Amino acid sequence: MNERQQARRPGGRSARVAAEVHQAVTDLISEHGYGKFTVGDVAARAGVADSSIYRRWGNLETLLTDVALTRLNARSPMPDTGSLAGDLRTYAAAVAREITGPEGLALVRLAVALSSNGPQGLQARDDLRDERTRQLQSVLDRARERGEDAPDALDVLDHILAPMYIRILFGMGPLTPEYVDGLVDRML
Amino acid sequence: MNERQQARRPGGRSARVAAEVHQAVTDLISEHGYGKFTVGDVAARAGVADSSIYRRWGNLETLLTDVALTRLNARSPMPDTGSLAGDLRTYAAAVAREITGPEGLALVRLAVALSSNGPQGLQARDDLRDERTRQLQSVLDRARERGEDAPDALDVLDHILAPMYIRILFGMGPLTPEYVDGLVDRML
Repeated sequence: MNERQQARRPGGRSARVAAEVHQAVTDLISEHGYGKFTVGDVAARAGVADSSIYRRWGNLETLLTDVALTRLNARSPMPDTGSLAGDLRTYAAAVAREITGPEGLALVRLAVALSSNGPQGLQARDDLRDERTRQLQSVLDRARERGEDAPDALDVLDHILAPMYIRILFGMGPLTPEYVDGLVDRML
Repeated sequence: MNERQQARRPGGRSARVAAEVHQAVTDLISEHGYGKFTVGDVAARAGVADSSIYRRWGNLETLLTDVALTRLNARSPMPDTGSLAGDLRTYAAAVAREITGPEGLALVRLAVALSSNGPQGLQARDDLRDERTRQLQSVLDRARERGEDAPDALDVLDHILAPMYIRILFGMGPLTPEYVDGLVDRML
């Protein structure tokens, strides 16, 4: 494999399989919804063996959260602007943009689906939450290291993220920049 | 019908039918989940004609929100304690108790289901939201009439209700009295 191929296909075969499986999951969610497809359906759609999925992800719930986390990290990455206000405004704006789109309720739907899917579902939900909380915590830790007075990650969840999600869930959008910045300013 | 019968069966036949239909909906949600049953299923279970349901509720979505609203009004009624702080603490505590229970995600599930069910679903979701907002607004209006400095209903949604719902959705309970009172105190 030459350098150009590596750049185009980082990680090689394993990464290609992951991308195909992720795409299959995204398609199946969009076409059928959560709880309406199995690991076998994902495998068939992605053109891989069931065992490849079980070996890599363990179960469907873990795969679903991996797909969601990959999407979240791509669309609403944790920013590093050099100031807490800048980071929180950038992050809140990215989340607002994401959840105002056609797939806006994706994370809420996933959490609802996982919450009603036994211990594996609850574990996957908790892992997803913990991973995003850990990322947010690193933003807040950086602010504290710069000497800024940073809130707790749970405060950001409660008073910046939760209001935006609930407004979208109950059809109270759009989330204007004034509204989103206002949530951040109120916290700071 | 004598007075004792009236007290036992307020509204007579119409109320009995409504109660049976509501119970049928509750059972079907619990057994099958949203999106997995029709008006015909509800009618069969309640022992009434489909046409009785259509005549009274118009469609399944309106019936679902009627059931949810009846439950909300019974379990988390808007209080009237004589002070804004008392009203908000009482209301927040009732919501926290309700959503910490086994049916905790019922309202979130309903909102998700209605949000993906076309114009009738969106209308029913909006009606449900508007009715509860109207009730909350009357609590806030009473506070203003007493000369208290009351927040907007949307602020209560954003900073008292939304955090509690999102914490339950992501498995971050229990909602302790200290936490719930803290949300109210922060707002006041």
